[in-house]
Amino acid sequence: MSAPPLAILCCAGDQPLEVAKAARANGREPFLIPVQGVATADFAAFANEPWRLGALGALFATLRSRGVGEIALIGAMTRPDWRDLRLDWGALKRADDIAKMFNGGDDSLLRGVIALIEREGVKVVGALDIAPALAAAQGPAGRVQPVAEDEAAAKIGFALLEAISPFDVGQSCVVMGGRVVAVEGAEGTDAMLQRVADLRAAGRLRAKGAAGLLVKAPKSGQDLRVDLPTIGAKTIAGAKAAGLGGLALASGKVLIADRAATLAAADAAGLFVFGAR
Amino acid sequence: MSAPPLAILCCAGDQPLEVAKAARANGREPFLIPVQGVATADFAAFANEPWRLGALGALFATLRSRGVGEIALIGAMTRPDWRDLRLDWGALKRADDIAKMFNGGDDSLLRGVIALIEREGVKVVGALDIAPALAAAQGPAGRVQPVAEDEAAAKIGFALLEAISPFDVGQSCVVMGGRVVAVEGAEGTDAMLQRVADLRAAGRLRAKGAAGLLVKAPKSGQDLRVDLPTIGAKTIAGAKAAGLGGLALASGKVLIADRAATLAAADAAGLFVFGAR
Repeated sequence: MSAPPLAILCCAGDQPLEVAKAARANGREPFLIPVQGVATADFAAFANEPWRLGALGALFATLRSRGVGEIALIGAMTRPDWRDLRLDWGALKRADDIAKMFNGGDDSLLRGVIALIEREGVKVVGALDIAPALAAAQGPAGRVQPVAEDEAAAKIGFALLEAISPFDVGQSCVVMGGRVVAVEGAEGTDAMLQRVADLRAAGRLRAKGAAGLLVKAPKSGQDLRVDLPTIGAKTIAGAKAAGLGGLALASGKVLIADRAATLAAADAAGLFVFGAR
Repeated sequence: MSAPPLAILCCAGDQPLEVAKAARANGREPFLIPVQGVATADFAAFANEPWRLGALGALFATLRSRGVGEIALIGAMTRPDWRDLRLDWGALKRADDIAKMFNGGDDSLLRGVIALIEREGVKVVGALDIAPALAAAQGPAGRVQPVAEDEAAAKIGFALLEAISPFDVGQSCVVMGGRVVAVEGAEGTDAMLQRVADLRAAGRLRAKGAAGLLVKAPKSGQDLRVDLPTIGAKTIAGAKAAGLGGLALASGKVLIADRAATLAAADAAGLFVFGAR
């Protein structure tokens, strides 16, 4: 039972290339479709065919002609202005659906794109489906080991994230001294870490025992194809500035971007990064 | 069945006086015990006897001689340095308990004080037990009325606060466009509102429909004698700066400090303040 031909729709940043390499290492050679004006990496090492946003008919024709069975949408997508889209015939036929997609938030837009693609018989998969090695696995990912107190704190954090899961708030929190001291909202993980750093600098948070940690996990039922929790070198720097001891990530469900560099940064900062739950 | 003689141990700020007046209006004339060097208001309108922190024996003697059956601890207490306390004989007899109290956090200190007093047979009550009119009651407290969408948003906020209640995080959150966008942590309510104001200024939060609201409630099982959720003019200013439409407060469980001025400020800012749940 071999996997069907795989395509990667490549948006901004290095992540599409990283995922493509991991898929190749995993034994699945991907065909890349860089979005023109959006994709930024150099895809020369892979078979690829650039695509103009809006030319939905052309995209589906390419997928069909190559027999693509699965596609992943990877990389940062700036929300396009629909007035800038030059729709081809395949897109015009679906103009109603596209208009609806643009009326919702970013998630609704992506979910709409996924639905449109899947209606063509191509399964949309996530980065971790085709490159599971990019996720934090169970246990320490870097060289620094958490202590038992950190693992207990991680449990508290994961329990809080599960409790707020139905509210679609944030994907992370900070636990310090056995207590949740910060919950991520619309500000995002980096701003939350900055807040913890500020509170510590102001002497308003004193850690007893272990230094505390960032806990990150998707909401239960979250579509990881649309919204994949990710950490990177910036997260490590933020955790370090907040005086934390490390990061606890929902194993198999949080992507470690630019893995080698990110884990090297964690090692250098003396921070643990471990997968749990 | 008339209520037993009532004392109020008065710490910093105007709240002790406000509570005393409300108790009087409620038909219970309180005897005030301003803490020397801590209490700041003018208590001349009430029978009172200043008390030196540390003279625990003297406090208990006063309570006994006046037949005090209930006491409320009101106002802001800066954590005293135990080395500055000149303990009297009554305190020295309880030195072990006092040392233990000082080893914990502020809550532990207050809980210790409450336990010590109750061991003397005097019941410790909260501000809202003796002055329930100071709390937000069910319905609008000011002149501005919430709309149905606000009440639905308040339900979401109260549900979130209940979900995080076991984690001892914060007492408030901000709901906007049907979604929780900020959860209070160690930073406190004012800093959370500032964060929402910043996110809006940066264009990262766009409210659809109603402007959104601050939702505030104690944790379930929270000892309101130790930690009473409170809003005031500063909260109103913060909510206004965050572009919110108003405040939803757990009815009967959140104190509106300096009530007349706070509600006048809300009216002037066009913000509703309503009690619900």
